[in-house]
Amino acid sequence: MSGDSRKNATVNTTDDGKGGALRVAVTGAAGNIGYALLWRIASGDCFGKNQPLILQLLEIPQGMQRLSGVIMELKDSAFPLIHDIVGTDDPNIAFKGADAIFLVGSRPRTKDMDRADLVAANGPIFVGQGKAIDAVASRDVRVITVGNPCNTNALIANANSPGIPSRQFTAMTRLDQNRAVGQIADYLGVPASKIDDVFIWGNHANTMYPDPRFAKVDGNMVTEVIDSDWLTSKFLDTVSTRGKAIIVARGASSAASAASAAIDHMHDWWQGSDGRIVSMALPSEGWYGVPEGLVFSFPCRCEGGEIEVVEGLPIDSFAQSKIDENVTELLKEREAVKELLENS
Amino acid sequence: MSGDSRKNATVNTTDDGKGGALRVAVTGAAGNIGYALLWRIASGDCFGKNQPLILQLLEIPQGMQRLSGVIMELKDSAFPLIHDIVGTDDPNIAFKGADAIFLVGSRPRTKDMDRADLVAANGPIFVGQGKAIDAVASRDVRVITVGNPCNTNALIANANSPGIPSRQFTAMTRLDQNRAVGQIADYLGVPASKIDDVFIWGNHANTMYPDPRFAKVDGNMVTEVIDSDWLTSKFLDTVSTRGKAIIVARGASSAASAASAAIDHMHDWWQGSDGRIVSMALPSEGWYGVPEGLVFSFPCRCEGGEIEVVEGLPIDSFAQSKIDENVTELLKEREAVKELLENS
Repeated sequence: MSGDSRKNATVNTTDDGKGGALRVAVTGAAGNIGYALLWRIASGDCFGKNQPLILQLLEIPQGMQRLSGVIMELKDSAFPLIHDIVGTDDPNIAFKGADAIFLVGSRPRTKDMDRADLVAANGPIFVGQGKAIDAVASRDVRVITVGNPCNTNALIANANSPGIPSRQFTAMTRLDQNRAVGQIADYLGVPASKIDDVFIWGNHANTMYPDPRFAKVDGNMVTEVIDSDWLTSKFLDTVSTRGKAIIVARGASSAASAASAAIDHMHDWWQGSDGRIVSMALPSEGWYGVPEGLVFSFPCRCEGGEIEVVEGLPIDSFAQSKIDENVTELLKEREAVKELLENS
Repeated sequence: MSGDSRKNATVNTTDDGKGGALRVAVTGAAGNIGYALLWRIASGDCFGKNQPLILQLLEIPQGMQRLSGVIMELKDSAFPLIHDIVGTDDPNIAFKGADAIFLVGSRPRTKDMDRADLVAANGPIFVGQGKAIDAVASRDVRVITVGNPCNTNALIANANSPGIPSRQFTAMTRLDQNRAVGQIADYLGVPASKIDDVFIWGNHANTMYPDPRFAKVDGNMVTEVIDSDWLTSKFLDTVSTRGKAIIVARGASSAASAASAAIDHMHDWWQGSDGRIVSMALPSEGWYGVPEGLVFSFPCRCEGGEIEVVEGLPIDSFAQSKIDENVTELLKEREAVKELLENS
């Protein structure tokens, strides 16, 4: 795309058969989030401006025609970093040798479904995808789950990939974090770049807790410049119900902002979070008393391709009650899909 | 978005009232191309990863509700480079102080319209926008016209902005160039990064001429490795009718690839084309015998924020016939809107 990246995107022909390119798989690739995501990946926003990529795109059979059009448009963008594009409805092809996987596709909630129905409808998809990841993906693959209910979908995929370390399966709460940052920035009338260390606890669902207690604006504590009433009521409500507000305003669900958050999540995992605290949902190892294995959003820092949960943050009674609420809900979701976790 | 850009996006408080930020205006901001474009701009793909931006977004009154949702999603993306976002249905607000303008919005062609109807329907929009640019934009503003018929829309805007030098009004043929690059790369089975110096002559319409005569693959002439029959028939047909093929395959017109081409165009104009030949339509100064003032796509190089038409390339009889065909068509379009060019 740009002169600089074009120059640097020369193929490094090694003997791995992919010429130094990363294999990046995206499911639901022809959907609205997928469509927004692919161009951000292809331009180098996620893996770097000098990193050649092979895109491996998965759709359901009914989506293959539309996917062919998306691939035509990707080719029409002449991205210097893209070395090949594969479109398929077979996860064993899409995930073959994949270094990074964006699990975006899921069955959307229809009017007559409650959250339990949504969990049940999506479970089998993520069993199949988990098994395919286990069978064919790189052993170092990093997986982000965007398709909802993303925490429990990640749990299922993880349980069905026993050959891949659990920490490599994550779910996205970065959209919630970004929304929280946006709300605080807007409230204070400053650019989002001034806000640090806001993060999300728990489930990507209305129960989530956007925690402002450690947030900073230009290095000062946000709690010292914003009224605590706003932070525990309006702020929390706005962030946790933002998805619905977007649908009302735009006439369509969040797509570009969800894709942007997925880019941020994978970018920071891959390239480091530069000391900042970021939100990632990953299988609990008992952190903050959250039961082992639950895919739960924690404050994290990333460095050298690894996610480290930030431990030892003080938990007050309000925060504890929100964490408990999310644990209760995620245990319920886990219970609803327990027969899909047989490998766990 | 990324740690690095976040760090560098500190506000440089100067006395211009915008803190070192560029003002970037986008029309049709809530449409499909606008939606794809805004996130690419906001992430720094166009103006650089260290350049703070103020987005000034224009919609028609009926689009304002949807635009409010787009702005919510932009805020929800917490881009470190974005310092402010303005949404309006008044071009005098959208273009105020604008340093770069993407004229994306236009009336789409409906089933019963031919090209002449399309030209006539869009003309008045670009008269108004040209006058607003003349009245309030930065004197150094760079304008790219994406909304079709883009060459003639740019002509109208230019004619109605007598206070802005003509060379600052361009129309987009980069999508056609990128499609041409993609076709050649696909044919040869190489990444797009290997292909250089393919470019477009003329009008962004079926008559355009994607010129492969100077194209290189890995430094070798494309004409020496690809059959000339393919280059003068299948290649030319595929590139010039690609828009329709995308609609058939994807069920929707090109959006992300059009946005990506607009990014490439403005990126190269702003940051330089690094010695490569790129396609830009701009008001002819008589180059290659094209009548003065017609907004015509030429081979260009960009450096230091300036566009230079590459002069002196040999024109064979086939190329000349294609150039003539495009001149004829653009003269006809100009004739159809002549009463809108009164300032020219």
